[in-house]
Amino acid sequence: MDVDKKYFSNITSRERAIFEGAISMGALFHQFVGTPINKTTKKSLETSMEESLKLQPAIEDVKVDIQFEKLEESMTEFEYTSLTGDMLDVKIFTKVDNVRAIIRIEFIEELNYPLMYVEDIIES
Amino acid sequence: MDVDKKYFSNITSRERAIFEGAISMGALFHQFVGTPINKTTKKSLETSMEESLKLQPAIEDVKVDIQFEKLEESMTEFEYTSLTGDMLDVKIFTKVDNVRAIIRIEFIEELNYPLMYVEDIIES
Amino acid sequence: MDVDKKYFSNITSRERAIFEGAISMGALFHQFVGTPINKTTKKSLETSMEESLKLQPAIEDVKVDIQFEKLEESMTEFEYTSLTGDMLDVKIFTKVDNVRAIIRIEFIEELNYPLMYVEDIIES
Amino acid sequence: MDVDKKYFSNITSRERAIFEGAISMGALFHQFVGTPINKTTKKSLETSMEESLKLQPAIEDVKVDIQFEKLEESMTEFEYTSLTGDMLDVKIFTKVDNVRAIIRIEFIEELNYPLMYVEDIIES
Repeated sequence: MDVDKKYFSNITSRERAIFEGAISMGALFHQFVGTPINKTTKKSLETSMEESLKLQPAIEDVKVDIQFEKLEESMTEFEYTSLTGDMLDVKIFTKVDNVRAIIRIEFIEELNYPLMYVEDIIES
Repeated sequence: MDVDKKYFSNITSRERAIFEGAISMGALFHQFVGTPINKTTKKSLETSMEESLKLQPAIEDVKVDIQFEKLEESMTEFEYTSLTGDMLDVKIFTKVDNVRAIIRIEFIEELNYPLMYVEDIIES
Repeated sequence: MDVDKKYFSNITSRERAIFEGAISMGALFHQFVGTPINKTTKKSLETSMEESLKLQPAIEDVKVDIQFEKLEESMTEFEYTSLTGDMLDVKIFTKVDNVRAIIRIEFIEELNYPLMYVEDIIES
Repeated sequence: MDVDKKYFSNITSRERAIFEGAISMGALFHQFVGTPINKTTKKSLETSMEESLKLQPAIEDVKVDIQFEKLEESMTEFEYTSLTGDMLDVKIFTKVDNVRAIIRIEFIEELNYPLMYVEDIIES
């Protein structure tokens, strides 16, 4: 079966680059929020988030930076905390045909909200 | 702050309708997969999935149908199972300005994969 | 196969009542944290959490109370937030033979931590 | 505050070793089930699961072995799959005072169910 032809011929390459990145960003947030974390495990969690999301369709790269300050703020008596969306600074890089998109999540203080948006999109 | 102007002026209404629906579909899958379920709790889980995802930006409606046959197949000795992506048949309806999109997930036998795609998109 | 005999004869009924409740409490937390929520969806999410966890072995009842004040505090510009462990006040009631246990999670201000503990255990 | 005295004086060290391990096993299952995985990311996901769960109270060690055969079986057209409970073979080692417990999950073919049980418990 030609999946692209059957299921994706109704959208452009640019739209699909946005679509696939957005799926993976929603996935990343809701898969990993709640995971126990502190500064000693920050790196292995970031790596695992990056590697697992890179498996999804059209994802070229994933850069996860768990915000250390937010992590420290929420630290508990037990010296770890749970990952929250507010700690996430992530870029997901997608490529579909000649289009590359960067989907971003970052915490926006003014909205008190970890916003997902299209940071950049380039047609070459 | 005008969020739309600051963060979304680089994409069209059509692209944003796709973007927001895709985020919510990725979110739904990775939030709820793993939940204990059987036929008696199918309805309350569907309702909760629909109501919670409807809160996200640009989502007009969500229809979740957990596939009963797949549910029955995977039933265990203990008379319940864990929700898997293969059981999901979901439509997420988004609206951005004059554009309406339907984002769909359904299990495609031929791919052995629960595929997410844009089922329909209408500009009025 | 006699599951109880094969896998659980090394622990007492009292220990198993604790064991099964603790599994379900860990499950509940990590399954549902991150779910989009506001006051209009609070009830359907509580119901779904209760019904799904009640399916697990030895669970007699589950009472979920999402703490409204913590929910209101964390509300965002977009009029919903993500469920966090700090909002959870939950009792899981287990029964194994003649033993009933109540496993509890509640946020303890002094620890800045949602603590899970055995609230009560009764042998009749 | 003396947490142990205030919240855990109603159970024995042996019971608490079981309690804490069971919480972490329920947590591990419901946090990570659904994560995209294939053979190239198996190791980083196992590491991340081990490190994050080791942060929880009374956990001395965690050994995660994602069952390769079950992983291969469920592979999709897209060369990855979603982690399911059936793939998990995990031991969580807890220590409370003079008691050490091993909590185990493994898939039991006969039950079609990933069973959690107390594999061993030693008082020294």
